[in-house]
Amino acid sequence: MSDDAPSPIRPTDDDARALARGLIADARFGALAVVHPDTGLPHVTRVAIGTDARGVPVTLVSDLSLHTRALRAEPRACVLLGEPGPRGDPLTHPRLSLDVRAEVVPRGAGHDVLRERWLAQHPKAKLYVDFADFWFVLLRPEGAALNGGFGRAFVLGPDDLRQG
Amino acid sequence: MSDDAPSPIRPTDDDARALARGLIADARFGALAVVHPDTGLPHVTRVAIGTDARGVPVTLVSDLSLHTRALRAEPRACVLLGEPGPRGDPLTHPRLSLDVRAEVVPRGAGHDVLRERWLAQHPKAKLYVDFADFWFVLLRPEGAALNGGFGRAFVLGPDDLRQG
Repeated sequence: MSDDAPSPIRPTDDDARALARGLIADARFGALAVVHPDTGLPHVTRVAIGTDARGVPVTLVSDLSLHTRALRAEPRACVLLGEPGPRGDPLTHPRLSLDVRAEVVPRGAGHDVLRERWLAQHPKAKLYVDFADFWFVLLRPEGAALNGGFGRAFVLGPDDLRQG
Repeated sequence: MSDDAPSPIRPTDDDARALARGLIADARFGALAVVHPDTGLPHVTRVAIGTDARGVPVTLVSDLSLHTRALRAEPRACVLLGEPGPRGDPLTHPRLSLDVRAEVVPRGAGHDVLRERWLAQHPKAKLYVDFADFWFVLLRPEGAALNGGFGRAFVLGPDDLRQG
């Protein structure tokens, strides 16, 4: 990038905040980028996504998966939310690159509340949600890059992302 | 993960190789995870994906995008290919976490060949393919994790991924 290139980032407005919050609230899966624990390089996998009662994104992962081991070693990760529909240009569909800090939820009351909500959002997860190697992980937003379509880029902070 | 957990990785077979190669050949977009040049943390964005004449994955990116700056600083990245359809459980849909080394293609004969092929694969890109800040980037496969659906995981090397 040349030093005199115009910034492609627009000032954050309420429309951008609403779009970002909607992408989080509606996500049912996403692409989770973690630091590979063996190489230190990025590793990206598909994970299921839901939300807790406050709208914080949540995933359900197995200890058999590399991304779980990665998050336990380095909880700072990034998840891409906002999946294109079957029609149209995928690059004009809004998406959010959400920087998160992962927090593995131990078994107990917090787990049980997440489990009930998760099964309402992901009914098929009843097949494996109670396996001993599966854990809910809160993905606490720390910031985001929102791409609302070609030429519509925004940088958002944690307050912009909090569900109202 | 406990030390005596069974490995979830299956032996690579021809079906796994064919599935992985098909996911690369059919991809039109994917989730690209790079090292954020300012923080060193993972950053994941949606990018368009095509292939060159040998089947090597290619993307077309702008110097105004963070991922382009990131790839110029650290070319080792990971791209998630294999998008779920509109129906069914997204986590049973096959997907490939492809470790790549990015190679930015300078303007010239190589660029022109890629441009022609890209426009056949992505007709709408004619609106911006010739902007001065756009570059083709080869994403040379170095290895991959293939998830063929719940409980069907494979680890593949570069030879497994080469189009026949």
